[in-house]
Amino acid sequence: MPGIGRKTALRLVLDLMKRKPEQVLKFTAAIEEMRAHVHFCKTCFNLSDDAECSICTSTFRDDSLLCVVSDIRDVMAIESTGQYQGKYHVLGGIISPMDGVGPSDLHIEELIERMNSGLIREAILAINATMEGETTSFYIYKKLQPFDVKVSTISRGVAVGGELEYTDEVTLGRSIILRTPYEVSLKR
Amino acid sequence: MPGIGRKTALRLVLDLMKRKPEQVLKFTAAIEEMRAHVHFCKTCFNLSDDAECSICTSTFRDDSLLCVVSDIRDVMAIESTGQYQGKYHVLGGIISPMDGVGPSDLHIEELIERMNSGLIREAILAINATMEGETTSFYIYKKLQPFDVKVSTISRGVAVGGELEYTDEVTLGRSIILRTPYEVSLKR
Repeated sequence: MPGIGRKTALRLVLDLMKRKPEQVLKFTAAIEEMRAHVHFCKTCFNLSDDAECSICTSTFRDDSLLCVVSDIRDVMAIESTGQYQGKYHVLGGIISPMDGVGPSDLHIEELIERMNSGLIREAILAINATMEGETTSFYIYKKLQPFDVKVSTISRGVAVGGELEYTDEVTLGRSIILRTPYEVSLKR
Repeated sequence: MPGIGRKTALRLVLDLMKRKPEQVLKFTAAIEEMRAHVHFCKTCFNLSDDAECSICTSTFRDDSLLCVVSDIRDVMAIESTGQYQGKYHVLGGIISPMDGVGPSDLHIEELIERMNSGLIREAILAINATMEGETTSFYIYKKLQPFDVKVSTISRGVAVGGELEYTDEVTLGRSIILRTPYEVSLKR
């Protein structure tokens, strides 16, 4: 399991051995229940207790705004900012030919299907700016061309509170090319 | 001197003691010459060998674009990106009432004077996004209002190559609010 090496595994086993058998049964039952009851949302592929997740079924969130991310952890990261009130679409990975992951391995077909509803006005590609991520973004951008939908990406630039001097050259260069009108930067 | 503590100072002194006196004289002469000949550019307040620096006198750079930075090190950082072809204006600090630095201690008056020439179309505020930096940006933005000049700031957001999951919440939140059309993000 990720992050669990030999030493950590031994420590966990010894901890389980110290507990009463009933307690361990409760623990394994909880894991089984979790695995049986938590599944992927049928609409956005986020984790969910029900067939559709609480974000997809929420009536308080903007149906016309769709944030496309590669991973469930990205949903969590964006949710924790409290700045996004639209819906999500989790791809479940990024296009990476080196690892044998092609477009058909991701939930891109389902994304296109969601576009067919005509509800969505804007798709925000919030995908990592790594080489694979950029490829994935570009692929999706091309796929969304036939639809009447605005495609945007999260802004790239110097971190908030970050200092110019300690920013890497590529990011600093992009931050000048992609500069924004001062009035826009005041938006809350 | 910054970064030189007692131990480093001792190491440097011992190194100087190992050298011939003539060599040390050459070294001190070089420092004296440097101090005597390098001064601040009369136009942009960058470091310069002459009265005006090589960036200000360059005819290959865009006269209508002015990048306002707080420090000479920021000029170096931006120059090293190779993405900027306009001119600079170095403020020589940021407004910081706690440290007793007010607007009159910076080269803001000189910036206004440069605006009077009518040559400048856009001023890019490339100032750190710290509290003092934001205050300084806002002060300059207000001061530039009477002029027919576009005021922009460098973009804030997730670093190029950076991952969403490891980006701080404030920056990630801003990167969604300040999202850019996908076509714009393809600009080189």
